[in-house]
This record gives sequence, C-alpha cells and structure tokens, in this order.
Amino acid sequence: MKRPQVAVVGAGFGGMQAAQSLAQVGADVLLIDRHNYNTFIPLLYQVALAQLEPELIAYPIRTLFRGQRRFRFLMDTVTRIDLPQQQIHTSQEVISYDYLVLATGSQPRQVDLPGVAQSAWMLRTLDDAIALRHQVITCLERAAHEPDALQRQQLLTFVIVGGGATGVEVAGALVELSRSLIRRDYPMLRRADVQIVLLQGGDRLLPDLPPRLGSYTHQQLRRLGVDVHLKASVSAVEPDGIYLQNGQSIATETVIWTAGLEASLPELVGSVAQNQRRKLAVLPTLQLAAYPEVYAVGDLANVQALPLTGVAPEALQAGVTVARNIRRQMQGRSPQPFQYFNKGRLAIIGCFTGVGKIAGIPITGFLPWFLWLAVHLVYLPGWRNRLLVLLSWLQAFGTGDRAARAILTSWHPSSASTAAPSTRSAQYPSTHP
Amino acid sequence: MKRPQVAVVGAGFGGMQAAQSLAQVGADVLLIDRHNYNTFIPLLYQVALAQLEPELIAYPIRTLFRGQRRFRFLMDTVTRIDLPQQQIHTSQEVISYDYLVLATGSQPRQVDLPGVAQSAWMLRTLDDAIALRHQVITCLERAAHEPDALQRQQLLTFVIVGGGATGVEVAGALVELSRSLIRRDYPMLRRADVQIVLLQGGDRLLPDLPPRLGSYTHQQLRRLGVDVHLKASVSAVEPDGIYLQNGQSIATETVIWTAGLEASLPELVGSVAQNQRRKLAVLPTLQLAAYPEVYAVGDLANVQALPLTGVAPEALQAGVTVARNIRRQMQGRSPQPFQYFNKGRLAIIGCFTGVGKIAGIPITGFLPWFLWLAVHLVYLPGWRNRLLVLLSWLQAFGTGDRAARAILTSWHPSSASTAAPSTRSAQYPSTHP
Repeated sequence: MKRPQVAVVGAGFGGMQAAQSLAQVGADVLLIDRHNYNTFIPLLYQVALAQLEPELIAYPIRTLFRGQRRFRFLMDTVTRIDLPQQQIHTSQEVISYDYLVLATGSQPRQVDLPGVAQSAWMLRTLDDAIALRHQVITCLERAAHEPDALQRQQLLTFVIVGGGATGVEVAGALVELSRSLIRRDYPMLRRADVQIVLLQGGDRLLPDLPPRLGSYTHQQLRRLGVDVHLKASVSAVEPDGIYLQNGQSIATETVIWTAGLEASLPELVGSVAQNQRRKLAVLPTLQLAAYPEVYAVGDLANVQALPLTGVAPEALQAGVTVARNIRRQMQGRSPQPFQYFNKGRLAIIGCFTGVGKIAGIPITGFLPWFLWLAVHLVYLPGWRNRLLVLLSWLQAFGTGDRAARAILTSWHPSSASTAAPSTRSAQYPSTHP
Repeated sequence: MKRPQVAVVGAGFGGMQAAQSLAQVGADVLLIDRHNYNTFIPLLYQVALAQLEPELIAYPIRTLFRGQRRFRFLMDTVTRIDLPQQQIHTSQEVISYDYLVLATGSQPRQVDLPGVAQSAWMLRTLDDAIALRHQVITCLERAAHEPDALQRQQLLTFVIVGGGATGVEVAGALVELSRSLIRRDYPMLRRADVQIVLLQGGDRLLPDLPPRLGSYTHQQLRRLGVDVHLKASVSAVEPDGIYLQNGQSIATETVIWTAGLEASLPELVGSVAQNQRRKLAVLPTLQLAAYPEVYAVGDLANVQALPLTGVAPEALQAGVTVARNIRRQMQGRSPQPFQYFNKGRLAIIGCFTGVGKIAGIPITGFLPWFLWLAVHLVYLPGWRNRLLVLLSWLQAFGTGDRAARAILTSWHPSSASTAAPSTRSAQYPSTHP
C-alpha cells in the first residue's frame, strides 16, 4: 500500500469531512473504515423503529468521493496504531503515514452491570438498529399469539435506559409506533398493554440542555403515555426484566441502552492522555500533544476548555479545521486553534414535538421538531436518500402510516456485538442472542 | 388456536391471492408463513445487484390485510401436515383446519454435485439476495486492493449457472453493475477485468420461450460482453472456481446458481403424488385427488395437462380460482376447473433490452424491457414501494447511477441456508461461509 500523505481512520461525520476537505485541495488521502459506507447516526432510531430503511441512512463511501483522484478508500479494521513509528496496523497490512486523523467516534459506555452486554440492546451502529427493529417486531408478533396476559405484558413493555437525546427520541418513536403500527396491524393487542418506560439516572432529562427544556420534555413524554423515572439507577438486566437499585423491577424483554457514550479507539501505542470516557486529550489545534502530525476529531476528542456535547456539527467543523491545519503544516505554517461556532441545539421528542436552543433562546413544541427534521434532511448524504426520507416522513406524518418498514428480517446481528466496535472485524459471525 | 375454516400455508403470490380472495368474502382465514412479509420474487435480482433496497420488495403481511376482520396471520414454520387428520404442525402448535391451501412455492432444485450447497449462491429468498449482494461487493472491495492480477481476475469473474429467465436477468444486471458502479466507484479496476459467464445446460437460453427469442437473448448478452456457453454442464463447484464436464474450469469466487426449481413443501403425511420436481399432482380443479378439501397453487402444483412455467400470473389466477372453489364447496356446490388465461410472457435482459411473446407475437428489444418493468411495478404491493421503486428506476436508467444501494452490510445470512427453506426456522443462525 502506497504511503498516503494523510491517513484518516473512521468515516463518520468528522472523518468524512476531514477527508473531503483534504481531498478537495489535492492532498493524497487514505480513508479507512470497517464499513464501506458512512452511517448517518442521528437517524438510526428511525431505522430501529421501522420508520426508514437501513440503506437510506447508509451512503457508500466510494460514491461520496467519486472523481477525487488522490483519494483512496480501504475497507478494513484498524487493530493498532503505533504513534511513534507512524504506522497503522489493519487486519491485512501495515500502513505508514505522514499525517493521521483519528475519527473513530464513540461507542456505548462500558458498564460493569450484570446482564447489560448480554441482554440490553444498544443503538450506535446500523447493525444495532436492525437488531433492535427485529427485536421490537418479534415481540409484537409473539404478543399477537400469546394467551397469557402477564407474558403478553412483558413482551409489550419496552424499557429505555438513559434520558439524553437518544433515549428521548427512542421513547417518542415507540409511542409513534404504538399509535400507527400496533393500532393498525395488531388489532388483537390493546394499546393499554404497551408500556414504554424511560429511566434516567440524573434528576432531569436532556442534561445537555437547560433545565426548563428537560422539564418540558418530561411533561410531553408523560402526556404521550411514557412512564418516566428520574434518579433511577439500574442494578441488573436479565432477558426477562430489569432491576433497579431501589429494589423495583420491571418485567420486559426489551431493554434499550442509551445511557452514555465513550470514545471508540483502536489500540494506541504511544504516549496519550485519555479521560474517564476514554477520550483523547488534544490541544486547541486538535493535535495530540506528543505527536503534532496526529489529529483527533469528533466524539473521541477531548478539547481543552471546550464544552463539546458530541453532536454532528462539532465533528463537521472540527473536520474542516483539521484539514486546514494539516494543509498549513504541509506549507510549513503553524496550525490554528479550533473555534466551534455553536449554531444552537435541537432535540426531537416525537409526535410533532421537540425542544431546542437557538441563539440562546429556548424553543419548544412544533418548531424545534420541524427544524430538527429539516436540518437532518439537509445534512443527510445523497439526493436520492434525501428524497426518499422526505417522502417517508410526509407519508408517516401526513397519513400516520409507517408500517411499510416493519419487516422482520431473518438476518440480524447479535445485540452483544457492539461491545468493541473498533476491533471488531467487518464481518463478524452473527448468532441470535 | 381457534380452528380456522381455511388455512393457507405460504404467503407468496398464490397464497396471498387465495387468502385475500377468501378474506374478502368473509371466510375465516389463517395465513401461515415463516416470514412476516411477502417477498416480490421477480425483483430479487435487483436487490442482489444493489439496485433496490430489500424492504422495497418485502411487504408486511399484516399491513396487506388491514381491516379484514376474519383474517388471522401466524408467523411460524410448518414442519408437517397430516392430511388424513386435517392437522398442520408448526414449531409452536397443532392447527386443525376445514380447508387447506398449500402455497409454499419453490426452492432451488437439489442437485447432487459436489460443492454446490456449500459454495454456490442461490437467489430465491430475500436472504439470498442480501447474501449475494454482500458477496459481489466484497469481491469488488477486495479486488480494489489486490495487487496480484490473476487473483484480481478471479474476484472479478462472476459465473451464472442456468440460462432461464433468472440467469439471464442476473447476467444483464451484472453488466449494468459493471457499467455504473464499477466504472464510477472503482476506477482502479479495469472493466476488461470483469468477466461475466453464463452457463446453460440446454442448447438455447430461455427454454420456456420460442427459440428465436432465445437466440436474440444470446446475441444481446454477447453484445453486452457476457460469455455465454450452451450445452455446458457443471461437474463441481469450489470456493475458488467452477469445473465443467468438458474438462474446462473457470477461476471465480462467485458462482450464482439459477439452474432450476423444485417444489418446496413441508413433510406431508398422507397419500400424495409428486413428480420429479417434487410438485404435487392436482386435479384440474386444483384439489388433491385424495383430499378434496386440500388445494395446491403456484409453483408446487402440477396441474394435469396445463403447461405452466412457474410465473406469477399463474399463481395469482390459481389463487383466485381456489378461493372461488372453496367458497363453492362451502355452499355445497362442486368446484370448477382452473382455466389459465395466458396474457403473454416477458423476460428482461437488461441494458434496455428484453424479449417477450404477447398474443402469440414475439417481441424484442426496448418494448418488452419496458413492459416487463411496467407490469412488475403495477403488481408490486404498496404505494410507497411502487413510488420508490419507480424513482430508483428513473434515476438508474436516466442517469446511469445506481450506486446508492451498494452498501456492504455486516449482517448477511449464510449462502447455504436455502437448502431446506420449508423446514428452516424463521431465525436461523448466520455464519459467513
């Protein structure tokens, strides 16, 4: 493999942006990712709740870089990076680089609670979304033929752990699912049997947003029939229930774990500083302190004195900054600090309601809901995908009908396979848990 | 499980139509299928060659039967049917019936050639299509980084066994793939390295159509760069090649097996007559001779003196006939013979060309190509799916761009899993072969 000028590891928002910005100015770029597609993570929950097809949020990387002559893509897993030697080890080869951009993103935070890895459903990759969709629809199918009322209740109880943006949107989407799919296609099930529970360890939902927005969200979810528990800590997860530290337990077969992220990284040889979420400490210029030719962007970077919350615009802007800084370095100039321009924050709840903060002003209700969808539609790669997603939303919100994606695929990965995504081979064996 | 008046086993064209026609006249119908969706088999090859998303050709059964009060659906695998006892055994329960419609369709014919089950790729279910898509794109990705010319050639050689309609359309779609995806997204690969081989055991392609149409198809495929071999018999398949009886061998990692079908049936207890393709002999009324309350439709029925070739309209019309006949029996009247109204036959080659025979007149070129797509668009279930398929085709044929579905899914079933579809559990373990 010819030595690239710039190696970019990870094709998420940050890595893709860095690679695009670099390729556009003619740098010799090698992008490495274990998938041959970029996943639009913000819409994963819609795949998981049978609102969108998986392919609509997965864009082939080669197609995104068509025509870029000095761009190369390698679909492989990075097992180790030797920073002093400036070498990337993949499952197939060893690649030397001049400059390196680490953009491997985040994974669900590893917790030491019994049963989580085995029985809880994560939502961080397209595989996770497919697996969760399979689980939800399987529960409905089984409940449709379950004569025992308690067992049916257990099948129709969905517990979400983690009241951040992802937990909230999953709860809202489950409400939408029960109002559309369950009502129309499973008339033998009583909607009252469907229980959606949201457990938050802290004292408010959406802790990254102002408290009043968290309260509003709490009210809305309650109005929609979601059972919200604050200051609720999980002690264990089993295949047929979840146990809380206060002694309470909930009979359920579906525990969805959206309780925090940590950085996702291959093994790094060298002197790096990581915080408790495994994030790499970087200088304001996004360089690693000990290796000026190495940059980190997105969820895996901990930028000193910048309160980043792990949203896409941060990664995108950082990707642009890194590309500019590498170019400056190539020209013998010094890199500049990353300045994040915070355009605001939006969070979707569902059922035509959301929250947000734009130019410091908190907004609630229909407007942030609409803006959230509009912004994500604009950022979604691919004209065809944007059109198809828009049509799907128009049908879903116009007619209330979203059943068309509720197919129960025979192919589905294990839910426990997201444990170590950076080191996972691109083709892992799948066994149903 | 409450005893249904009519049990329909299999939700393909024939079973769905029979169930729909019966439900519409208020019969108490139980439809059983191992999947919760109906697969639109004629477009499977487009999923396999990354032209359409899998969900566009899979429609949830419950959604298709919304509002039908006396319709029930059970997602389960039928393991055995006891015809004298009038009982269906599934993995979960035993169901008695008054009337039974067998509509389990077809599977690839079991051949006794070494390596076929282990190394050849079938194309009969949605799982098959996903697995084949994964295989094709993996070969491209590997070829993109393969320095050895012979190895690269082996990865880019695709051999199709069987020159019926399915083999022909797969060959044509592979040509379309090489002209669009490979040309635009894999510029490091020379199109001349891509070899598409079509092996036909008989002396002409499309044996179900008149010889001149088979010749035309042969010419067209040759013009498109496909290497067509007639009177070619396979002796063995290996993971890295295929061996012919004439001593020739072709280095390839992708052997696509479209070489004939046989009936797909659960174990039947009772006195039934099956032919060499395992098809059930039925009376002109579509009843089993020994069991007048049992009907068979579609690919698994062998109707005396009717030259059926296993296309969708036959199954659809038979489904209507069976529903009518069961209704007549319920009213104490005698069933009537099935009369197939042959509206013609179309076969698509690809690259804007096809063949067909309408009202006895053979047609070739653009018109049958267009008609084939138009007819299948009309028959595809679901307005949303029809619209999205139409948009995909407009983009593909208008711009030549079809790359958007070329994602390499980590989730994919084993290719060998189609060996015994009727007895396969809905959730089988997946291991990459």
